[in-house]
Amino acid sequence: MRHLLSTRELARDEAIELLDIAEDMARVQDREVKKLPTLRGKTVVNLFFEDSTRTRISFEAAAKRLSADVINFSAKGSSVSKGESLKDTAQTLAAIGADGVVIRHGASGAPQVLAHSGWIDAGVINAGDGTHEHPTQALLDAFTLRRRIHGAGASRGRDLDGVRVVIVGDVLHSRVARSNVWLLHTLGAKVDLVAPPTLLPVDTSAWPARIGYDLDEAVDSAPDAVMMLRIQQERMHGGFFPNSREYARAWGLDDERFRRLPADTMVMHPGPMNRGLEISAAAADSAQSSVLEQVANGVSVRMAALYLLLAGEEGAR
Amino acid sequence: MRHLLSTRELARDEAIELLDIAEDMARVQDREVKKLPTLRGKTVVNLFFEDSTRTRISFEAAAKRLSADVINFSAKGSSVSKGESLKDTAQTLAAIGADGVVIRHGASGAPQVLAHSGWIDAGVINAGDGTHEHPTQALLDAFTLRRRIHGAGASRGRDLDGVRVVIVGDVLHSRVARSNVWLLHTLGAKVDLVAPPTLLPVDTSAWPARIGYDLDEAVDSAPDAVMMLRIQQERMHGGFFPNSREYARAWGLDDERFRRLPADTMVMHPGPMNRGLEISAAAADSAQSSVLEQVANGVSVRMAALYLLLAGEEGAR
Amino acid sequence: MRHLLSTRELARDEAIELLDIAEDMARVQDREVKKLPTLRGKTVVNLFFEDSTRTRISFEAAAKRLSADVINFSAKGSSVSKGESLKDTAQTLAAIGADGVVIRHGASGAPQVLAHSGWIDAGVINAGDGTHEHPTQALLDAFTLRRRIHGAGASRGRDLDGVRVVIVGDVLHSRVARSNVWLLHTLGAKVDLVAPPTLLPVDTSAWPARIGYDLDEAVDSAPDAVMMLRIQQERMHGGFFPNSREYARAWGLDDERFRRLPADTMVMHPGPMNRGLEISAAAADSAQSSVLEQVANGVSVRMAALYLLLAGEEGAR
Repeated sequence: MRHLLSTRELARDEAIELLDIAEDMARVQDREVKKLPTLRGKTVVNLFFEDSTRTRISFEAAAKRLSADVINFSAKGSSVSKGESLKDTAQTLAAIGADGVVIRHGASGAPQVLAHSGWIDAGVINAGDGTHEHPTQALLDAFTLRRRIHGAGASRGRDLDGVRVVIVGDVLHSRVARSNVWLLHTLGAKVDLVAPPTLLPVDTSAWPARIGYDLDEAVDSAPDAVMMLRIQQERMHGGFFPNSREYARAWGLDDERFRRLPADTMVMHPGPMNRGLEISAAAADSAQSSVLEQVANGVSVRMAALYLLLAGEEGAR
Repeated sequence: MRHLLSTRELARDEAIELLDIAEDMARVQDREVKKLPTLRGKTVVNLFFEDSTRTRISFEAAAKRLSADVINFSAKGSSVSKGESLKDTAQTLAAIGADGVVIRHGASGAPQVLAHSGWIDAGVINAGDGTHEHPTQALLDAFTLRRRIHGAGASRGRDLDGVRVVIVGDVLHSRVARSNVWLLHTLGAKVDLVAPPTLLPVDTSAWPARIGYDLDEAVDSAPDAVMMLRIQQERMHGGFFPNSREYARAWGLDDERFRRLPADTMVMHPGPMNRGLEISAAAADSAQSSVLEQVANGVSVRMAALYLLLAGEEGAR
Repeated sequence: MRHLLSTRELARDEAIELLDIAEDMARVQDREVKKLPTLRGKTVVNLFFEDSTRTRISFEAAAKRLSADVINFSAKGSSVSKGESLKDTAQTLAAIGADGVVIRHGASGAPQVLAHSGWIDAGVINAGDGTHEHPTQALLDAFTLRRRIHGAGASRGRDLDGVRVVIVGDVLHSRVARSNVWLLHTLGAKVDLVAPPTLLPVDTSAWPARIGYDLDEAVDSAPDAVMMLRIQQERMHGGFFPNSREYARAWGLDDERFRRLPADTMVMHPGPMNRGLEISAAAADSAQSSVLEQVANGVSVRMAALYLLLAGEEGAR
């Protein structure tokens, strides 16, 4: 694997391979000494044009456990804010010898540009671009689903054939939703998207997912997992969107809906959660919730991605 | 030791053990190559909800000299500012595998909440919480006192029995003062607090210290050490507090008072100093001043704390 | 070498030695595993009072490839902004055991003060001070010139005798120009400064360089290299300076001037570039441009500087 830019382009075999390597990494994590020498001498740059401490520290922990050197580059207060282009930034990172670049950018497509421009030879991992994709989030979600469904010991090589996942919320603006739709489809799962009409893309005909507007119906369909998306509260102020109370009543996983879910339906959320808005505290903290597993699995999945992109022979990439 | 949250809860033997280990660490510091492999593979997160570069780099240097991986997490611009709770932050740190969390927080009690919540299994070190405590500052102060009084070579196992320390300044808002009062008392020292009445807590009856308002009297009592607290100049604008000039005249260690101190009385300050306000330049830079020793000893004491919390067997903690 | 503060004070032999060591470092950079154990156990502090992500990450990468521990200290939001003096900051860094301090400061002369004050024993590298100097930039420029002119394999021990360099732009405010003028002169090169009269220092009589105002004339003189300085656009708003369009027309390396340059004239720029202002995109991205080599060589030169300052015996420094 040369780059990890989107799940839409990820083949089933590539996804399974990455998840299997993440299983190995998770086993390393469980040991007392968690460090592998795999990426010693490699430099990973966290190039964050948007703040995201959670994602940044997850990648930073992953890279350090593989013994890479990590350089954090927040675009705030950098020459980027003096008008430097992505091209100049990329060439600078190439010139200082970055082997891998983890990029979070507000513009959809920025990681693709970085990877395919020829400006830099490094492996590029998309850590979230605009409303486009967030592939490591989808991979950690798939990893979490696979482990819960098949068991950690029996996951290797397995996909999510026939698994039913309901994704609920602001699909329109969610890169998490997009990456999950593509990856879950590739792995054989069936996806239902449930959202207010104003928070769905205008044309979802090309999406391999079923569209719905009724969370109660979705809950009662007894899915294997319900994935609640984070509501960006700053989006609530426009007149086109429901306000917080309306949203929580119609599309929140409140206590009542949570009780109606089967006892083995997973409750997922990419975090950070708005407890009481898109998810109730009881649902978030229940045994069915996989929120913390998702975060922990994030480190394993990111270790696997860094390994696949950076550990190979230079020529073999 | 499982956590280091306050000096109030620290038993005499625990304190002495930590100071003795800090002696070992100080000896490592003096060698040409300063790095120990002790915490290799461990991850220490500096979780700072308030800016404090001095304290952060002291902990960062301490952790790195023990070969830990360090992840800096400044709450500014993080999901915390998007409304994430301490609980979510803690669980995130747990999930990425933090072995130790060094927390600075504006709210008194936040480190206790973090440590005792069950949200995270990591060892927690309080690096300053609200107006409550700053235990590593008090420990480095005690370490500095012990070394000056008994000599570096003869400090091991010793306490501060009978040592007389005067703490001067804004006791009301000072976590440094609180942590010092408890620790010095535990180690057998006698503490005098000298402050303007408006900068003392309303009820100090439970404090193991004598209260006074007259710095001249305290100076003439020939104490073993005078510890000047930093004045937060932004507090000077309310009508209830003395202004800067009044403060310096009545409660500052100016040149005249400094000259009246015995030649072996230590002059201490947690830094950064307001020269000319709570302390004169001559006093700050004199041979009696231990300000720089305090900073240097801070690294040794923090290495000792990290060692005690993180180097043990998982089960033994 | 004890400190690296300016190129004005750098002797020819010292400069050649540093460039030769940078050649060794560049060879290490080309290997698969790029890390040397040379500075293991040493602590390098990046003390940046001004933002400069490019320079900071170049030093950070250099230090980490030599296995040093790196602590980033941005003065923003630090106790410095609470009024801490450079003295207190320096003493704090000394006390936490910094072996090297890389300082960027808005005030000309701050690194000299830091190095010669006695406040700290660490080796000090000037990473840019006010409008004074930026020595590692000039050294990486000289390194780049030497490699292009003599070839990477035949550079060792060579200087720039007889090489002709034109430096164009805001010389008045440019520490890059100052450091280059001194170093190029020391290495035997001939320097022409070309600038609008309002962007030249009032008295350049002591500068070992020829002053001109006409870029066309300089271009037609067929120099070995043209070094375009970055225009600080915020300086363009005063009435005394040309506006952007006037500047680009009279002092920019536009396509037309670039075409008139001999095919082996190097086009240099310290970055980040204002494409279309001081340099055209075609010139910036041409084979004659050494902009990316300059950045890459920056890491090698900074590794060499850190090596010279920090790798020696304590006594031998």
